[in-house]
Amino acid sequence: MSASLQILPVDGLPEVGPGDDLGAMVGRAAAASNPLVDGDVVVVTQKVVSKAEGQLVPVDPGDPLSHKPLVERESVRVLRRRGDLVISETRHGFICANAGIDLSNVELGFAALLPEDPDRSARRIRDRLRAVTGASVGVVISDTFGRPWRRGVTDVAIGCAGVAAVLDLRGSADTFGRELQVTEVAVADEIAAAAELVMGKATGVPAAIVRGIDSSWLRRGSVAGEILREPSEDLFR
Amino acid sequence: MSASLQILPVDGLPEVGPGDDLGAMVGRAAAASNPLVDGDVVVVTQKVVSKAEGQLVPVDPGDPLSHKPLVERESVRVLRRRGDLVISETRHGFICANAGIDLSNVELGFAALLPEDPDRSARRIRDRLRAVTGASVGVVISDTFGRPWRRGVTDVAIGCAGVAAVLDLRGSADTFGRELQVTEVAVADEIAAAAELVMGKATGVPAAIVRGIDSSWLRRGSVAGEILREPSEDLFR
Repeated sequence: MSASLQILPVDGLPEVGPGDDLGAMVGRAAAASNPLVDGDVVVVTQKVVSKAEGQLVPVDPGDPLSHKPLVERESVRVLRRRGDLVISETRHGFICANAGIDLSNVELGFAALLPEDPDRSARRIRDRLRAVTGASVGVVISDTFGRPWRRGVTDVAIGCAGVAAVLDLRGSADTFGRELQVTEVAVADEIAAAAELVMGKATGVPAAIVRGIDSSWLRRGSVAGEILREPSEDLFR
Repeated sequence: MSASLQILPVDGLPEVGPGDDLGAMVGRAAAASNPLVDGDVVVVTQKVVSKAEGQLVPVDPGDPLSHKPLVERESVRVLRRRGDLVISETRHGFICANAGIDLSNVELGFAALLPEDPDRSARRIRDRLRAVTGASVGVVISDTFGRPWRRGVTDVAIGCAGVAAVLDLRGSADTFGRELQVTEVAVADEIAAAAELVMGKATGVPAAIVRGIDSSWLRRGSVAGEILREPSEDLFR
């Protein structure tokens, strides 16, 4: 019998601002609805992490393109441009639209940049969750990216702590006993995508709990170290 | 209070072969563990759909590259080659490695092609699930794709029925009352990714139930119509 998962929204998180102790806030909000237990993975959206870390830059509220100079500043390589859209590589190594900067769900007159080091953000939130709730959990920081060839956006992981980013199945056998061809599964991205299904974009729910993850997946974890592909091994850069 | 989701594996599905009534088999296997209810979304992996539809081609079991001529045959456009790896566009419009053909979890001496029309496959399975279980469910056919720029594979939707492929949030407001910038969410891909977390690659669980999806997402649905991007609007083809 295989294990099942639950995806639980964390309701009731107050509006987050610079300097807030986000880990403690998430832990307390979860305690009121679905108290955290050891082995949970807590997914937190980039937007609230950036707000708590003060990654906000003033922009002209009357100009919908006023954040575009920031996009150039935060990019180390532009892959494509079309009209106002820029697909670029950020300092961190993420390839996404507009260097991950956007204005939605941010106070008018500000743009939110990505966290400086999302894996570090995840580790800090994880430490604070443990201190406040006593539970040893994994943390994934999620963001919403488009992708080539397919319409629509999905949530992916930009940082993680206490849970694997990529699961290496090399050496595992398929159900016919042959070695698996597809061997590295980006579980942190799948966890981020699963969490998005209960968070939505218009609901103001910036965190969710994924409960029931295989305990063998719970290890240090790093999106930068495991998921970001070197340009030299990338066929599309 | 936002709704939560459950992701339930469908255990006990017998080995699937050409001509099998896959919808009925999944419905009966689910009945033994987690009986389907209206509004569930059932995710079924491409591999068992291809097997049931007889999309199997004999290959030389001694030659690990014997399926490569099939890859050329099933491709309408090659985007990249490196060594044995081919990234190409299939007849359907999917862009993936090796035209979606692989040998794992298939009987030795055979390669599995993608279903001819995965949206149609999903509709058939949905109809059979309804006939056998009485439940009106959505169906997603999932497959495992790599992606540019990020290591590891994730599961995405290649077909769907009875559930939206893309959710259009245009006109929705963010929590500050401004119109959302990110407006089209590929929920079928996120559902496929969530299901993969309980199916795994080595466990022989080729189906899962996603329970608790917002009922407004349950409509006809089509991956070909909603997710596949036209070459003319694609910056990476």
